[in-house]
Amino acid sequence: MEKIRWGILSTGSIANSFVKDLQHVPDAEVVAVGSRTQESADKFADTYNIPKRYASYDALAKDADVEVIYIATPHSMHAENGIMCMRAGKAVLCEKAFTITASEAEQMIAVARKEKVFLMEALVTRHFPVIHKVLEWIKDGLIGEVRMVHANRCARGQFRQEQRHLNPELGGGSLLDVGIYVIGFASMIYGKPPVDAVGYGHVGEFGSDEQGATLLQYDNGALAVLSFALRTAAVNEAYIYGTKGHIKLPDLFAVPEKAILCVDGEDKVIFEEALVGNGLHYQVLEVHRCLRDGLLESPRMPLQESLQLMQTMDKIRAPWSFRYPNDN
Amino acid sequence: MEKIRWGILSTGSIANSFVKDLQHVPDAEVVAVGSRTQESADKFADTYNIPKRYASYDALAKDADVEVIYIATPHSMHAENGIMCMRAGKAVLCEKAFTITASEAEQMIAVARKEKVFLMEALVTRHFPVIHKVLEWIKDGLIGEVRMVHANRCARGQFRQEQRHLNPELGGGSLLDVGIYVIGFASMIYGKPPVDAVGYGHVGEFGSDEQGATLLQYDNGALAVLSFALRTAAVNEAYIYGTKGHIKLPDLFAVPEKAILCVDGEDKVIFEEALVGNGLHYQVLEVHRCLRDGLLESPRMPLQESLQLMQTMDKIRAPWSFRYPNDN
Repeated sequence: MEKIRWGILSTGSIANSFVKDLQHVPDAEVVAVGSRTQESADKFADTYNIPKRYASYDALAKDADVEVIYIATPHSMHAENGIMCMRAGKAVLCEKAFTITASEAEQMIAVARKEKVFLMEALVTRHFPVIHKVLEWIKDGLIGEVRMVHANRCARGQFRQEQRHLNPELGGGSLLDVGIYVIGFASMIYGKPPVDAVGYGHVGEFGSDEQGATLLQYDNGALAVLSFALRTAAVNEAYIYGTKGHIKLPDLFAVPEKAILCVDGEDKVIFEEALVGNGLHYQVLEVHRCLRDGLLESPRMPLQESLQLMQTMDKIRAPWSFRYPNDN
Repeated sequence: MEKIRWGILSTGSIANSFVKDLQHVPDAEVVAVGSRTQESADKFADTYNIPKRYASYDALAKDADVEVIYIATPHSMHAENGIMCMRAGKAVLCEKAFTITASEAEQMIAVARKEKVFLMEALVTRHFPVIHKVLEWIKDGLIGEVRMVHANRCARGQFRQEQRHLNPELGGGSLLDVGIYVIGFASMIYGKPPVDAVGYGHVGEFGSDEQGATLLQYDNGALAVLSFALRTAAVNEAYIYGTKGHIKLPDLFAVPEKAILCVDGEDKVIFEEALVGNGLHYQVLEVHRCLRDGLLESPRMPLQESLQLMQTMDKIRAPWSFRYPNDN
């Protein structure tokens, strides 16, 4: 089978993890990397034995040999970078959060449809085998009707202002960086957007949200109870509660190796699949499947859902006292 | 030591549990019970060997031999029953939720102060030895500054309309019945009322809230993430997350037998004290201590906090589409 040829846009931490995990996909080949400087492109390419290295994202996008580009820049750059790549005819896998705003997400999606290229948000959780099993359990009615979802994605880092994590200029803060995991989890489980959302975000010394929590309400009265933080460590479990039982995803639920099915009155059922690398290859398998099948979006991570997630996050942070440069 | 003489107002399920647990308090004596009918008063008194049994709450309140009355009626009756007892000069331990509304709580507290009698809400959690240890750990700074509290108190019962649990006429629903546990827990941990609260409640077939969730925001940006239900079972854990570690209270956190202290970089510390009966005697020990010390309220469960809890619950349920008869 002919290999699918990847380009890597940006050389930050997540780009390193991604390229390492690509080795677990036999029909993936990294042919080029683009960075803002030749020096960092060369360093990254030397480390991972990548043949072509570009000193600009634009040059990477124009490389005729590249089929699909993985965008690993800070959130604030996703729309600009993604649109440039798609206009150059490339398929795009774009790191989460998809964009900064729903408006940017709409622009991304419009370009993907106009250019007829594949586009997917890299919300890695939903491509794990554990998640496929969880969705199967729910679909089969094993826990009855889902009434409540709990999920936490909270960590405590020691950040400096120049890093992206808490820099609002780069879309930093807990909502876009890790809140997307819990909001995306609820969205996946319920399979529809919430009818309402409320929440809080605590804006800290760097002007971004260091921790937050949100409640999502669904049309049948079901709820999602979600928290996220970059400056408060927590146990990162998720629970799905139904009328007949529940499913637990232990810490770290966003990179799940195990799911525990607890049906009322029955023995527990455990599904496990040990993590390979960082687990980022699961989403690459999905990209490959879509590209080989000629799909322009993934049924597991559709573009309409990426848009809805950004709309929910716009709504959640609207009352908070900060703005990103990309905000209108 | 002379015994403290209790009267039991109402003969429902919780009254039975309470009287059973009173046997674990050597200096407590149940001298009378009052019910709406002679039949139920007699049945209860026979079961627990109680000398005096009254066919009205009023007769119980007027019994000169009774020092302190435990009020076990549905929430909607607490204020009326409590005020009657206090006006008859009795000390009162009133089941949670304290009242239906903050306005009723104010009236209760005003009567307690005017009559100079002891009054306490029976929010049992905070009288457990495990909780004393948890509060000590926090006070000693072992987990640093508390930034986030998670707590769930969710159960799934099969209810009939005529029962109190989901009957809005009797103050039924998840917020007042079990939401008070998680809201009271957050209040105890932070030691102050929230500056804001948001939440949802799903109003079901009986016209009351079957499940809900709320977020509380504190003045330093700390958060409480809380859920409660009578028709959705969940794992009833609580977590207290600080800047240096966290404390976990396993299921069932509201009746805690164990607390686990996890300080970053150190071995876990476990504090355990096995449950005696239903654990309701711990609050009785506190009532006895206060009565013997001549206190008119408990430092562990002060009246101002009971009022603040009702104010928070008023605020949380204000947007919900139901009203209790006691609502103004």
